[in-house]
Amino acid sequence: MDRLINFAAGPSMMPESVLRKIQDSILNYEGQGYSILEMMHRKPPFEAILLELKSRVKSLLNVPDDYEILFCPGGGKMQFGMVPLNLVTPGCRGGYIVTGTWSRMASEEARRVSREVTLWAGNGRDLPDEVVEVPDDADYVYFCDNETVDGTEFQGLPAVSCADPVFVSDMSSNFMSRPFDVSRFGAIWAGVQKNFGTAGLACVIVRRNLLGNAADTVPQMLNWNVYAKSNSLQNTPPVLQFYTAMLMARWVEEQGGVAEMDRRAKERSALLYSAIDDMQDFYVGALPPEVRSRMNVVFTIADKNLIKPFVEEAAAQGMINLAGHRSVGGLRASLYNVMPIEAVQKLTVFMKDFAGRHGKFH
Amino acid sequence: MDRLINFAAGPSMMPESVLRKIQDSILNYEGQGYSILEMMHRKPPFEAILLELKSRVKSLLNVPDDYEILFCPGGGKMQFGMVPLNLVTPGCRGGYIVTGTWSRMASEEARRVSREVTLWAGNGRDLPDEVVEVPDDADYVYFCDNETVDGTEFQGLPAVSCADPVFVSDMSSNFMSRPFDVSRFGAIWAGVQKNFGTAGLACVIVRRNLLGNAADTVPQMLNWNVYAKSNSLQNTPPVLQFYTAMLMARWVEEQGGVAEMDRRAKERSALLYSAIDDMQDFYVGALPPEVRSRMNVVFTIADKNLIKPFVEEAAAQGMINLAGHRSVGGLRASLYNVMPIEAVQKLTVFMKDFAGRHGKFH
Repeated sequence: MDRLINFAAGPSMMPESVLRKIQDSILNYEGQGYSILEMMHRKPPFEAILLELKSRVKSLLNVPDDYEILFCPGGGKMQFGMVPLNLVTPGCRGGYIVTGTWSRMASEEARRVSREVTLWAGNGRDLPDEVVEVPDDADYVYFCDNETVDGTEFQGLPAVSCADPVFVSDMSSNFMSRPFDVSRFGAIWAGVQKNFGTAGLACVIVRRNLLGNAADTVPQMLNWNVYAKSNSLQNTPPVLQFYTAMLMARWVEEQGGVAEMDRRAKERSALLYSAIDDMQDFYVGALPPEVRSRMNVVFTIADKNLIKPFVEEAAAQGMINLAGHRSVGGLRASLYNVMPIEAVQKLTVFMKDFAGRHGKFH
Repeated sequence: MDRLINFAAGPSMMPESVLRKIQDSILNYEGQGYSILEMMHRKPPFEAILLELKSRVKSLLNVPDDYEILFCPGGGKMQFGMVPLNLVTPGCRGGYIVTGTWSRMASEEARRVSREVTLWAGNGRDLPDEVVEVPDDADYVYFCDNETVDGTEFQGLPAVSCADPVFVSDMSSNFMSRPFDVSRFGAIWAGVQKNFGTAGLACVIVRRNLLGNAADTVPQMLNWNVYAKSNSLQNTPPVLQFYTAMLMARWVEEQGGVAEMDRRAKERSALLYSAIDDMQDFYVGALPPEVRSRMNVVFTIADKNLIKPFVEEAAAQGMINLAGHRSVGGLRASLYNVMPIEAVQKLTVFMKDFAGRHGKFH
C-alpha cells in the first residue's frame, strides 16, 4: 500500500476499508450504473445514504428525539457565521468562552453578524477553572470543545452562573471521539474532515425549539431551519461527502462506538504525552495535564533549530505533517479516531532516537 | 462497464477517463502515500491542483487579467445570496431579468439580503426580445444564461437601456459549453456539477474592481473578496471537488476546448429537437427555436398517461433520468458536455419506436 502515517490536524487519515469502499463506488455505485460522483440527490440510492447517515449519528451519539441532525456545506467557518445568525434573538447576543484560535475566530465572526460578548478569555494554554458569568441577554454560551491549534480540550461542560444555559459547542476536532450528553446542549456542530469524513461538510445537531429564530434577511443557505425543513436537501448537496460520512459512521459503529473511540484516544494520547514528559528537557511546551487534548498533542523542542530536522526525519520514516499550525510553530501530532496505536508507538520510538542522537537521553 | 446513459439535469455524467483517474487517487494520490480525500490543502500537491485548475479555466475561457477566479463551497444557491451581498452598493440594488425557475429564485434571494428590482419577467418559455430598461440605481443586470428547468438559453447578451451594464450571469448549466466574452461581464458563476465536475463547489469569475463592496456584516464565507485574497483557501476546501474540476478542465482542453464543446452541444440538441419536431403530434411542448437550450431539452407527450411508461421504458434500455423537473413534470433530456452523440441517437431511435408502438408514426 505504501500509505503514510498522517499526523495532520485535518483533513486526516481515513480507514483503508472505507477508502476501498469509496474507490469501488467511483465508476459504478453498487451496480446502479453510475458513479457516486454522478448520483442524483433526489433518488432512492441517495435517500438511503442520507437516512443511514442520520440514523447512525442519532444512535452513535444517542441524540434525543427533539433534536434535528443537519448537514451543511462549507465546513466549520461557515458555522461561525451561522451560529449567531440562527440563535441570536432580538435585543440579545451570543456569549463566547475564548480558549484558543478557533473560539476566538468564532467570536470575531459573531461580532460581524450580530453582537457578541466574550464571557471568558484565556491565554491559549488554559480553560476556565472558575464559574463563568453569563449575562441575562446572552442567548447561548459558546465554546470550542477541542482547540485544534492550541491543543486544549474540555473535560466536561464549563461551569456557568446561569441555571439553564444553552450551550453551543464547536466539536469539529473531537466529534465522534467520545460519548457526551447531547441533551445538555442547544447545538453542537462539527466540520467532518477530522474524525468523520472528508472536507466539504459540517454536521449540526440542534434542539428543535431553537430553530426558526433566523431573521428573514438571512440567506437561505445559512438558515438551519431551511435545512431542517428540507432534510438538508434544499440544494444539490456534496453527495460524496455524505457517503463518506455514512461509511465513517458505519466504521465507528463496527469498531465499538464512541466509547471505544474514547478509550483508544486516551490510550494514544497518554502514550505520547508520557513520552514527552519522560524527555521534558528535550521536548517542551506540553500543556498542563488537566487541559490536554486527546486529539491534538501540541509540543515543541527546547532547541528550536531541531524542529525542522525533526519534521523532515519523521517524514522520511513515513510519519508526515508533524509541524505545528503555521500561527504557532513547534510540533503537533493529531491523533484522530483512525490513527492506530502502533503509529503512536512508532512516533515515540522515533522521538527517543531523535533526542538521543541530538545529545540527550542516550 | 454497465454504465448507464444519464440524462439528469445534474449531477450529470462524467467521462470514464476522469472517473478512472479519480478512482486511482482514492487510496494513494499519485504515489504520495495518502488519499485525495485525506489531502492537506496547504501543501504542494494541492497547490498544484489549484494552480492548474485556475490556469486552465483562465485559458479555456480566455479570462482577462483583471478578473479573479474564485472557488466557493455550497453550489449555486449559495451564490444567490452572495451576488447581492457582494455587488450591491449603498443606496442601490440588484436588477434581475427573470426568465425561469432559477433566475426567479435568485431574485427572491436578492430581495432577502438587500433590495431587488425585477427588470423583466417572462412566462418561462421566452426571453426578452425588446430592450430591457435598467434604472440608474441598479448595480448590475442579472440573468440566468441557461434555465435548466424551463429549457431556455440566451443566444447572446440581453439588450439593455444603459450604456455600460455590469452583467452578472448564472452559468451553472452551460458553463464550459461555449466560448463567451468574459470582458462583457462583471461576474459570472456556476455550480460545477453539470458540465464541470461533481456537486459541492461553485466557480466564480469576477472583475477585480467589483470586489471589496461587501459590508462588514457579511459573513466571511460569503465574501468574494476574502476568497480572492486567500486564493480560495480561507478554510479547508472540498479537495476532491477541486481535483475533479481540474480533471474536467483537462478533459475539455483535450477534447478541443469550449468551441468544440459548443459544436457538440449544437449537434446533440439539434438531433433531439429535430426528432421532437418530426413527431410533433406525439411529442409536444418544445420551446420556440430561438430560445431553445442546447443543454436541457424540455418537452412532453401529448397523451400525459404515456409520460411514466416513456421514462420507465427508456430506463429499462439504459437511458435514465428523463423525467422533467418535479415542479413542471413532462420530460427533459439534459445533454451536457460529456453526453455522447451516440446516446442521443439511441434516445431518438427509442422515441420513434415508442411513438410507433403507441399508435403514431408507424
